[in-house]
This record gives sequence, C-alpha cells and structure tokens, in this order.
Amino acid sequence: MRLHYFPLSGHAHRARLFLSLIGVDAELVEVDLPGGEHKTPAFLKLNPFGQVPVLEDGDVVVSDSNGIMVYLAKKFGKTDWLPDDALQAAQVQRWLSVAAGELAYGSAAARLVTVFGAKRDPDEVIGRGHALLKILEDLLARQDWLVAGRPTIADVALYSYTARAPEGNVDLEPYPAVRQWLARVEALPGFVSFARTPAGLAA
Amino acid sequence: MRLHYFPLSGHAHRARLFLSLIGVDAELVEVDLPGGEHKTPAFLKLNPFGQVPVLEDGDVVVSDSNGIMVYLAKKFGKTDWLPDDALQAAQVQRWLSVAAGELAYGSAAARLVTVFGAKRDPDEVIGRGHALLKILEDLLARQDWLVAGRPTIADVALYSYTARAPEGNVDLEPYPAVRQWLARVEALPGFVSFARTPAGLAA
Repeated sequence: MRLHYFPLSGHAHRARLFLSLIGVDAELVEVDLPGGEHKTPAFLKLNPFGQVPVLEDGDVVVSDSNGIMVYLAKKFGKTDWLPDDALQAAQVQRWLSVAAGELAYGSAAARLVTVFGAKRDPDEVIGRGHALLKILEDLLARQDWLVAGRPTIADVALYSYTARAPEGNVDLEPYPAVRQWLARVEALPGFVSFARTPAGLAA
Repeated sequence: MRLHYFPLSGHAHRARLFLSLIGVDAELVEVDLPGGEHKTPAFLKLNPFGQVPVLEDGDVVVSDSNGIMVYLAKKFGKTDWLPDDALQAAQVQRWLSVAAGELAYGSAAARLVTVFGAKRDPDEVIGRGHALLKILEDLLARQDWLVAGRPTIADVALYSYTARAPEGNVDLEPYPAVRQWLARVEALPGFVSFARTPAGLAA
C-alpha cells in the first residue's frame, strides 16, 4: 500500500494517522507540492482534483482523506472506527461533512493563508474556524469523543487541522474541552504527530 | 418521520429528494430561515450548527444532509444507493466530501450571494464552481453515474446545487455531459424538483 502525501497537509496527515492507528503499514510517497507535482498529468490521473492524499492499494486508487478512511475501515473490518449502525454511521458522516466543509474552509483555510500564502479573506476563514470550535467546545465539554463514546474516524477527521489551528491565527485558548480532546487523540496507541510550522500564533 | 427543511435550501432538497427516491414518506416541516428560526434555542437543540435539513425519526435526530442520506440508506438497507463494498463506499464518500466542500463553498455559495445576499467573494466561489464542473464534465463524459455504474447517494449529493448553479452565475452551458447527467437524475422514479429562483443567469 502506498500513500501519496505531503508532510504539511492536514488532509494527508489525517490518512496517515488513521493508517497508523489501525496498524496498517503503507509506503509514504512524498508529492512535491511546492514544485507543482500535484498538477502534473501523472498525478491528475491518480486524482483529478490534484490533491493529496491518494492511497494506492494494488490496482485500487482512492482519493479524498475521508474516502481513504472509509476504504481502510471497510477493508479491514474496523467497525469500531466506522460503525455499521445506521445512527452512528450517520453521526460519523455528519463530522466527515464538517471536516470537508466548515473545517477545510475555516481553520484549515486560515492556515493555508499563513503557511502557504493562499489568497483567502482571513476574517472570513478565522471566523468560520471559531464558529466550529464553539460548537465542538460545547459538545466535548459533555462527552469524550464525537460519536459513539469511543474514538471513530470522526475524531481522526477533525484532529489534524484543529490541532494546528493556531498556525492560522485561530486561537485554541478559549476552548479547554477541545484541547483536552486533542490530548486524548494524541494519547491513542499508534498516534503519529502532524508536523508543526512556525506560523501564526504558533510562531 | 419529520424533515425540517426550507424550500430554497439545496441541502434540504438533497434530503427530500433522497427520501422520495427511496419511497419513504416524511412530514415536511418548514423552518422559517428568513425569520431566524434556525438560530432559536429550540432549533439549535436539534442541530447546533443551526442548519437545515434535520431529520427526526422518533427519538432519533440526524442532521447534515449527507448524514441523513447515510442514515436512511442504512436504516432501509439500500445498499444499491450506499454500497457496502470498501472501494465503492470510499468512492461515494469522496463525492459526499466534495458536496460538503467544493460544491458547498463553490456553486452553492455563489447562489447564496445572488439569492440570499450572502457576503462572499463572487469570483472566488464562482471560480471554485467551475473548477468542480470541469472535473465532473470530464468524468461524466465517460460514465453515466458518479460511482458504481448506477445512481448512488453521491449523485443525489451533487444534484441540487449543480442543477441551480446558474442562479449563482455559474454557467452550465460549457458542460454538456453534466447537463445530461442532471437530466438522468431528473428521470429517476420518485424525483422531486428543487424550487427555482429568478436569480443570476436563471433570471
């Protein structure tokens, strides 16, 4: 199994973290994002969206970090991480949607501005980051994990960009329950950390 | 079963459309978005994100349009619409992520500007809309459905906001394969249309 990734991509970290949490080995293939490798015909054939991560498993190619987690959970029968039950599966999906939406276009986008110089309105994306963090804080003050009383791919999906939100000037100080949840994820067997950059509030 | 919805929300239409496609009756409860009902304590108790749609099924409450489709597909055993196979499930997830990401912050956001006066950078969101449409056009020129050679919740997730993209000044004229795919969705038994507004290119 090969994971095409980039060390500073939180989407790539999400996939790498889940591989590690379930103890599945994969060769890490670094994609030269600064050199534009993700926009080459060879890479676009793997993923027409031109994004990392991409997982290759023999002839199977899966892109989208949420999609990769679903593939791995299903392939290896990890119903603890991705429940089969209708309600719990829906609740996990709810957070995968948030990871692809409010998180990607909030705290993750704010970090794109500071770390990669992306052109986004900082007020808009930082504001969206805090709006999500307020909801997470309220929830995580009452429960340890997002769904089902145990770690699921919902927690993995939200972890990486939330942990590095300060790099995009999204301050985690007002959210103690979120910070405790981050620490719980970091204490899971198999956890691998997401590279830090000297950007934003983390500088 | 009760679906809290709003007629001009594409997210709400997505859930309503899927209910209809699988032949499940639900009472439609209109949420007064213009009057701010979605920000009241009673509604925030149903969905802390303050968004439609929300599905109530007895004591069960599910929010997020993708989450609602997962709930319904699992509850009613619709593995044709949401495959159990690892690769196909991952491919469906890939498009649910796109629906929550590139679509919501692209063509859907462009329509929020014209229909609801939302403050977004039109160039940014219209550009994101076209970037997704180019990828869809390339794919749908080669296949009838997004995943598995048959309609799945991936198609339902992408339909509503793609169909109404012109209302946000995202022109569908350059994308004939996308328009043919929209027509295929509209020809499915149980299809219900998404309300039109006189905005953007549709005006």
